[in-house]
Amino acid sequence: MPVISRKGLSMPSSPIRKLVPYAEDAKDRGVDVIHLNIGQPDIKTPQVALDAIKNNDIEVLSYSRTEGTDQFRKKLAAYYKPFGVDVTHKDIIVTTGGSEALSFVMGSIADTDDEIIIPEPFYANYNGFAIAAGIKVVPVVSNIENNFALPPLEEFEKSITAKTKAILICNPGNPTGYLYKKEEIQKLAALVKKHDLFLVADEVYREFAYDGLEHYSILQEPGLENHSIVVDSVSKRYSMCGARIGFLVTRNSSVIQTALKFAQARLSPPTYAQIASEAALDTPQSYFDDVIEEYVERRNVLLKELSRIEGLKVARPQGAFYCIVELPIDDADDFAQWLLEKFELNGQTVMVAPAAGFYATDGLGKNQIRIAYVLEKNRLIKAVEILKEAIKIYSQQ
Amino acid sequence: MPVISRKGLSMPSSPIRKLVPYAEDAKDRGVDVIHLNIGQPDIKTPQVALDAIKNNDIEVLSYSRTEGTDQFRKKLAAYYKPFGVDVTHKDIIVTTGGSEALSFVMGSIADTDDEIIIPEPFYANYNGFAIAAGIKVVPVVSNIENNFALPPLEEFEKSITAKTKAILICNPGNPTGYLYKKEEIQKLAALVKKHDLFLVADEVYREFAYDGLEHYSILQEPGLENHSIVVDSVSKRYSMCGARIGFLVTRNSSVIQTALKFAQARLSPPTYAQIASEAALDTPQSYFDDVIEEYVERRNVLLKELSRIEGLKVARPQGAFYCIVELPIDDADDFAQWLLEKFELNGQTVMVAPAAGFYATDGLGKNQIRIAYVLEKNRLIKAVEILKEAIKIYSQQ
Ligand SMILES: Cc1ncc(COP(=O)(O)O)c(C=O)c1O
Ligand SMILES: Cc1ncc(COP(=O)(O)O)c(C=O)c1O
Repeated sequence: MPVISRKGLSMPSSPIRKLVPYAEDAKDRGVDVIHLNIGQPDIKTPQVALDAIKNNDIEVLSYSRTEGTDQFRKKLAAYYKPFGVDVTHKDIIVTTGGSEALSFVMGSIADTDDEIIIPEPFYANYNGFAIAAGIKVVPVVSNIENNFALPPLEEFEKSITAKTKAILICNPGNPTGYLYKKEEIQKLAALVKKHDLFLVADEVYREFAYDGLEHYSILQEPGLENHSIVVDSVSKRYSMCGARIGFLVTRNSSVIQTALKFAQARLSPPTYAQIASEAALDTPQSYFDDVIEEYVERRNVLLKELSRIEGLKVARPQGAFYCIVELPIDDADDFAQWLLEKFELNGQTVMVAPAAGFYATDGLGKNQIRIAYVLEKNRLIKAVEILKEAIKIYSQQ
Repeated sequence: MPVISRKGLSMPSSPIRKLVPYAEDAKDRGVDVIHLNIGQPDIKTPQVALDAIKNNDIEVLSYSRTEGTDQFRKKLAAYYKPFGVDVTHKDIIVTTGGSEALSFVMGSIADTDDEIIIPEPFYANYNGFAIAAGIKVVPVVSNIENNFALPPLEEFEKSITAKTKAILICNPGNPTGYLYKKEEIQKLAALVKKHDLFLVADEVYREFAYDGLEHYSILQEPGLENHSIVVDSVSKRYSMCGARIGFLVTRNSSVIQTALKFAQARLSPPTYAQIASEAALDTPQSYFDDVIEEYVERRNVLLKELSRIEGLKVARPQGAFYCIVELPIDDADDFAQWLLEKFELNGQTVMVAPAAGFYATDGLGKNQIRIAYVLEKNRLIKAVEILKEAIKIYSQQ
């Protein structure tokens, strides 16, 4: 029997994948499982996008242009303007989700065994894309104590080798909810210029910045034109995760040309999804205002409720819709499984994402979980109540 | 300025990419460019698929299941039955085009510097996926003299090393139009079993088999369960190239489990496209009968017209909708550009794909082009007339 590649064997499973069967079993037992584990917003997709699909008049569903149509990319360039990001359609490649943009970026800037530095905890699938491309992820630890702010530059300096090609950040962060300050971006800018590295920012949660804070894109930073590459997506912005449309944005034309070759190999991004995504760009500002207000309320409710649990630590999120919670228990993996397998409170339980999967350093995050607050407030309150009771009982065992 | 990866630099451009600007210029001069270069069918997408999209009632366009829904995959398994292919939904992963299935397969079965043997000429993007994954493509030459039939097994044997992980065939072939005989598949089956390799078959043109010949899938071959992996797609079958839905099919459960981890990293295939593709499975047989009849007529017309050109050699295609043509000229690259830049016949010219891009061995295919017969018969006739005249004039220069 022929053998699987070592690469394939070392691909990580999703951090919650092994919990899924336990969740199914719980549901089969009639337990209502409240999902704190997924980043799938419950927000309605903008009507303009849904309508564009219903009104399409395609007769031959043909390949679209590899990099997306000029019209779509021009509208996108216009979308970035109010954020102080000055790009043209030539600086943009439409991809199949931000996911594919990440793959294209990694392939374009790093060879086999090259290294990319990423502050941890980080979006777990960065590992998958890196392994698929034969690239090494080098983590730099950030801490719950300061809400996962940028680690000191010395930590990055220590990790830079001849093989380092880029620093990758997620802003605002999944799973941290941390929104980088302008000063932090500027420090990173100086660092990548000094060492001639790329700075890649996953800004798929750009719109989700709270407390009056403004998102500062690496594309706004002057003098970083050749270094900065942004990964973007319609998934969360318009609650269009199923569309599978994202973007690679950079003013470095060599990166565009190179990424385009990766894009050509896979022919084109999905056509229907592009129609919906282009239409979504006409979503009125009021949609975002409502969505942001909703998420802020959810976050506030969540933080307030969590503060009632003794011994628990939370990183206050100021962006995206996740937060990392440190629990007064040792093994969040075991706890998460126990919640589904053995626990219920009035016929309900919760599913959480153990945070260890978001760390590359072995042993880190073992007592942490990630909570996604993409649920209605009442359900969030209920979920935390269940969590509180569960921690009490679990700790007594 | 940070540097692009060697991997990125060595990614091939599409064989026709550098001709595109010349085609644009020709169109700007008012010349009617007949495209013999693209595999984008002009056939109408089945109405059931188009309707399913118009009638969708999605309100939150959320991520779908990573491997596709059970329902969709069960319908797919049923689709394979009449072809003598006995698989269940558990043997299928829905991917973003056959393209993505190819990437997942390569990543699952080969490590950096491992080798995959492919008869050449082959679909040029195999190179791109291999380079992106750090894998080496090892070509085995097939010949226009016998319509690009399977090269002798000795040729494969000679190319097998400790690093060989798989043999990849395309059946029926793009760019060759060759349909492998059952005996050829059986020879390959014996070979991969002997050397414990995977046999990967790109069967995206399965339906397009002519002259009463039947397509024999590697999944039909008994005893090959752990070796055979099929890449499939709705793109050509239903003229739904823009959907971006394909499939990875294998009864080797380790391959499924491994490919699933690659799939999880990119979250899910596009939702709208899955709706259309699932509906397309209800396309009546009469649709295919009509389509096949149309392609056979086109092929016959094409071959007949080409036979009037002196010094030209054609591989008779019995599947797909491409054929390789050897021209009485030395440099098809130059000729293809000249056709667009310098030539016209009554305001018309043709765009062809130089075949060198389909060969991995340097220097092969330089006097060959690939013709895709996805045009109406009258236009095909006109195109060959232009080609004939052009060859005459070009040769006199
Ligand atoms: C930080 C981050 N980046 C990228 C993605 C990928 O999103 P998509 O491929 O749907 O655009 C996600 C999805 O959850 C994410 O959280
Ligand atoms: C032989 C072959 N394989 C795979 C593909 C990829 O098709 P898709 O990704 O649209 O399914 C093509 C497209 O032209 C092809 O010709």
